[in-house]
Amino acid sequence: MKTYLYPAKSEWFDLIKRPVMNLSDLFPVVQSVFNAVQQSGDNALKELTLKFDKVQLTQLAVSPKEFQTAMKIVSEELKKAIQVAYNNILTFHESQRETIQEITTTDGVICWRESRAIEKVGFYIPGGTAPLFSTVLMLGIPAKIAGCKELVLCTPPDANGNIHPAILYTAELIGITSVFKIGGSQAIGALSFGTECVPKVDKIYGPGNQYVMAAKQLAQNYGIAIDMPAGPSEVVVIADETAIPAFVAADLLSQAEHGTDSQVILLTNSEKVADNISKEIDFQLEKLPRKELAGSSLNNSKVIVFKSIEECLEFSNLYAPEHLILAVANQRFYTGKISNAGSVFLGNYSCESAGDYASGTNHTLPTNGYAKAYSGVSLDSFVKKITFQEVSETGIQNIGKAIELMAEAEQLDAHKNAVTIRLNYLSKH
Amino acid sequence: MKTYLYPAKSEWFDLIKRPVMNLSDLFPVVQSVFNAVQQSGDNALKELTLKFDKVQLTQLAVSPKEFQTAMKIVSEELKKAIQVAYNNILTFHESQRETIQEITTTDGVICWRESRAIEKVGFYIPGGTAPLFSTVLMLGIPAKIAGCKELVLCTPPDANGNIHPAILYTAELIGITSVFKIGGSQAIGALSFGTECVPKVDKIYGPGNQYVMAAKQLAQNYGIAIDMPAGPSEVVVIADETAIPAFVAADLLSQAEHGTDSQVILLTNSEKVADNISKEIDFQLEKLPRKELAGSSLNNSKVIVFKSIEECLEFSNLYAPEHLILAVANQRFYTGKISNAGSVFLGNYSCESAGDYASGTNHTLPTNGYAKAYSGVSLDSFVKKITFQEVSETGIQNIGKAIELMAEAEQLDAHKNAVTIRLNYLSKH
Repeated sequence: MKTYLYPAKSEWFDLIKRPVMNLSDLFPVVQSVFNAVQQSGDNALKELTLKFDKVQLTQLAVSPKEFQTAMKIVSEELKKAIQVAYNNILTFHESQRETIQEITTTDGVICWRESRAIEKVGFYIPGGTAPLFSTVLMLGIPAKIAGCKELVLCTPPDANGNIHPAILYTAELIGITSVFKIGGSQAIGALSFGTECVPKVDKIYGPGNQYVMAAKQLAQNYGIAIDMPAGPSEVVVIADETAIPAFVAADLLSQAEHGTDSQVILLTNSEKVADNISKEIDFQLEKLPRKELAGSSLNNSKVIVFKSIEECLEFSNLYAPEHLILAVANQRFYTGKISNAGSVFLGNYSCESAGDYASGTNHTLPTNGYAKAYSGVSLDSFVKKITFQEVSETGIQNIGKAIELMAEAEQLDAHKNAVTIRLNYLSKH
Repeated sequence: MKTYLYPAKSEWFDLIKRPVMNLSDLFPVVQSVFNAVQQSGDNALKELTLKFDKVQLTQLAVSPKEFQTAMKIVSEELKKAIQVAYNNILTFHESQRETIQEITTTDGVICWRESRAIEKVGFYIPGGTAPLFSTVLMLGIPAKIAGCKELVLCTPPDANGNIHPAILYTAELIGITSVFKIGGSQAIGALSFGTECVPKVDKIYGPGNQYVMAAKQLAQNYGIAIDMPAGPSEVVVIADETAIPAFVAADLLSQAEHGTDSQVILLTNSEKVADNISKEIDFQLEKLPRKELAGSSLNNSKVIVFKSIEECLEFSNLYAPEHLILAVANQRFYTGKISNAGSVFLGNYSCESAGDYASGTNHTLPTNGYAKAYSGVSLDSFVKKITFQEVSETGIQNIGKAIELMAEAEQLDAHKNAVTIRLNYLSKH
């Protein structure tokens, strides 16, 4: 990790720069995949799976028998662990339900909002070496709380045409409607257009490689909503002298193992802390099975020493990290100063892994600086909030004149007339 | 309006079809505008304004003197009307603030969300014949409640290089930070990239023509968030025998005057009601100043008679209208059956104009079927909800084992280690 001491503000914009992702270069490839899926449906999906995943599938949907097998393969120990995570995620996301609140804005004018589930939702779950069944929990649980009717999951098959049993177990636990063995941009295409066997959905969620990200972006041009734009995962740790160096080092390494494009940044108000944590990283790195991956990702990473924790937070807000760990004394004192972050971890025992799996918060979070304008996935991501208004005779008499004047000034006469005709009626009845 | 009697469900998918909008055809044009703005900043904006708006501007920003003049030109009557709308919009959007709710998901694990304003927001306000100062209220009020720091407004100048005084008055009333005389896709480009005088923003809001819509979509590829995708405005009215035909006709016409691509649909459970409302439309149309516009938009419009109000609602949910008016008896009885709509108007006196201007609900709503997955603009549109978690020593001891097992199953060893190192530490201290 490269260390920077007390950088001037003029240097901050360089320090917050992430590796440039130019997804638009991938659009032509993804567009041709979309065209194939739109034109040839399941046949195209099978051909693309043979081409990209090197598997010949006769059936895209996971069969009941495959689910049954998965239920047996997953260990009881892991099932119990998944249940712990499930319960906490459920509790936290249940608390996000909005109660209906009728507001009388003017006598006779009542307004309120009601949440309605997005009917059909599609999840992309990456496969490969790290089978992210935890993401099935993070997307599936709020979708079920919201009341989504159809939950469709796509995930790439392995070399034998199978899906990791933990993914199937979790899908079954949650009540995913159907699971398909489809990966990459073709999965996003299938969910966007629908095929003989894959239903078209209203909104697509979940992480993926650059092709999946580009495909989600392109899907928006076809009227499909997405959870958020995506980029490589990242963490900022702010540590002072009360931080335990071994803990911080472990947190930085856990982010680094995600891949070589992972962003790992340590901010501190003490050169000594920076030094101690750097030493701990070297020490722990040696013992990691994925040490080469984590090591090369650390090459892009930064340790920055500032004058104060406040300055660390100011820098962090400019960077807008996906994950922010505050390993400082009086951590609650600083929460009000955080303006841009996906999810925040307070104190020495709130490691990022806790939020990744089991604290209850969602791990689908805005990366790449998107935390400036986007929230992570929550119950809100699975509902629309419909506004209602009920205007009584008294109500239209109270606000009618204002509407007439404004509509007239905007030269929308028929808008004005819709009110005038009601006011005239009331004056005669 | 064309009338359909008791269509079979197999015909519904044809009936809900909207005119196809292919924004991607406009992308090359918009991309070249974006490139010019990115490369040449204010100079490009001035050249494009001369080209598209036929005005030579020396200054893009509206000057304090222009604001002062506007304050004098707008009538006291209109100012009072705007204040009525302002108060109601403020009351309703204030009620959307979320209180912080700390949730203990497991003993020692506390999770919560806190809202933070999106710092820099950009508004596009169409100019031309209908100066939509009401949209300045609808975007500006929730932005101010949220605490956005910088509110930047772009709107095209008229032939003399001026902005409509009601737009300037409303901008001043709300406290918009700066107003620029820039229209079309170049305005979206300016807000996306920033220029010498226009600040780059985090999120762009507001309606516009097809070029503006395409530009907002393209802006997303540059990491800029947008309020929602857009399309032509639309209304569905569901009326039974208790509806007052003159009112319904006026509501349908007020939607029709928006333009020839406006969608206007009447659903009813009575042929007689359909007939009476159609007659009223013909009668009222004759008296409208914009009767040709409204008339030609009615050519694309539909009256559909169903067997019951429930069937009308089922059809409406499939269509997912921007505005839905329920002019039926016991209107509250039906609200639970509405699953897809932007904003709903209940009863004979809740005309769409009320929500367009002054009831308090927002008028920036999802069109084109997007109501299936998107909400209208609300306070939520101007904040991110950051999740926080505080895991104590007890907390990590309670959920640590589950995290270790899940991380191991996902083959993320460093994630597991971040927990193990803490559990080991606690067992020794």
